[in-house]
Amino acid sequence: MTEARERRIRLVIQYDGTDFCGWAEQKDVRTVQGTLKESICRVCGESADLRGASRTDAGAHALGQVADFLTPNPMPPAKWELVLNRVLPPDTRIARASRVPLRFHSRFFARSRVYEYRISERARVEPTRSRYVYECGTRLDTDPMEEAAASLPGEHDFRAFSEKLDALENATRRVLRASVRRARDEVRILLEASAFVRGMARRIAGGLFEVGRGKRSVSEFRRLLVRHERDGVRWPVVLPAKGLTLLKVRYGVSHRDVRES
Amino acid sequence: MTEARERRIRLVIQYDGTDFCGWAEQKDVRTVQGTLKESICRVCGESADLRGASRTDAGAHALGQVADFLTPNPMPPAKWELVLNRVLPPDTRIARASRVPLRFHSRFFARSRVYEYRISERARVEPTRSRYVYECGTRLDTDPMEEAAASLPGEHDFRAFSEKLDALENATRRVLRASVRRARDEVRILLEASAFVRGMARRIAGGLFEVGRGKRSVSEFRRLLVRHERDGVRWPVVLPAKGLTLLKVRYGVSHRDVRES
Repeated sequence: MTEARERRIRLVIQYDGTDFCGWAEQKDVRTVQGTLKESICRVCGESADLRGASRTDAGAHALGQVADFLTPNPMPPAKWELVLNRVLPPDTRIARASRVPLRFHSRFFARSRVYEYRISERARVEPTRSRYVYECGTRLDTDPMEEAAASLPGEHDFRAFSEKLDALENATRRVLRASVRRARDEVRILLEASAFVRGMARRIAGGLFEVGRGKRSVSEFRRLLVRHERDGVRWPVVLPAKGLTLLKVRYGVSHRDVRES
Repeated sequence: MTEARERRIRLVIQYDGTDFCGWAEQKDVRTVQGTLKESICRVCGESADLRGASRTDAGAHALGQVADFLTPNPMPPAKWELVLNRVLPPDTRIARASRVPLRFHSRFFARSRVYEYRISERARVEPTRSRYVYECGTRLDTDPMEEAAASLPGEHDFRAFSEKLDALENATRRVLRASVRRARDEVRILLEASAFVRGMARRIAGGLFEVGRGKRSVSEFRRLLVRHERDGVRWPVVLPAKGLTLLKVRYGVSHRDVRES
């Protein structure tokens, strides 16, 4: 029963991104990473290097962000969950804390990220929902949207769906799932990919949105995925961050929790 | 085709009450009524006497608050809806505007108000939901809660469920519906009454909550409704306003919209 000097704690984090300048810590602005690091420091008196799986944009939300940190504190994970939730502001919550192997890395061990983009066809939805939905005020035809989404799975160069990318930077990502479905007045786009290039989720949603409202055809959308046909082309509009939620980060079975000793 | 000098416009209003000091206008604080009056004034340049159906508490929400005002402005109701939504802040929305007879009065013509109180058994729910739910962190037994709720319909003196009421003030109200149901980790209390005494919805919810967590018995709850047995008794706890939403205000069929001329 030797006590390990350091432990790695993995957190599943939920947040309403409205009042955050995104995940990634920055000076002088309120970020989720910064807020969490402060709370960890308040709880155990030590600053931690908190590593997140996905750098969500300012205004985007999360129901299943994952992050990890190393700590000498022997507190059991359930206690971490409890005490962190006590000091965190109401727009951030730990859904689960667990102990993972020291080698675990939230970002590098992640197999995929699952995002959802919600669009309402109404110009205004209930104030209790509008923080999480892009209110477009336009009828959308989901048939061509589904057709366009069906071309996404597989490996593609997502240069046309990315933000300010260096010409030499690799924009190839593997999309595992892309679907479009109706839920009341909402059209919901589900995207799962190995990883996302900066701005990719909101630009894929934007591309599908343009197809849904008849501004672009399915074949125009498809052409964006074929490198030689759309070099320099960048028509997808970027939809507002508030419609985007990181639902889940998936890991392999080999990175299960370390059993508490 | 003579134009009426004044028209009465009826609004169905939705709001996230988190950042409001309640419905009723007060000096120097942000209220829903004040915010709406400002918006009406911005739209048509004239101040209006806006009359609401229900004075919701600070922090309580609404999906179907009703209010009305008199205006010389000949703008059709659909236009009112559109332009008000353009100037209103994101936490307030007009769900519908209609023209009603001049004699209509949101408060006095209302036949009943429907409130919902949401309690989660978890200590913390997702930040995207926690603004609308009281997170009690306790298991609740809904069977005795339902039993207690079943004693509410009918006419009762709700003195024991009211806030600072003058001894001579009438606290008799008619409850039309009271139910308790489970929805995932939530227990939802639905209350419909002719009208509510100040604090009544949150105190009925508080009483049912005490029964649900086993602190009080169903018969103790029932006794609060029988005047001579509980004079001076006031055990129901007041649950936080954030769990409370005004779902609907009901009117008789005779108060339908005035057809546009």
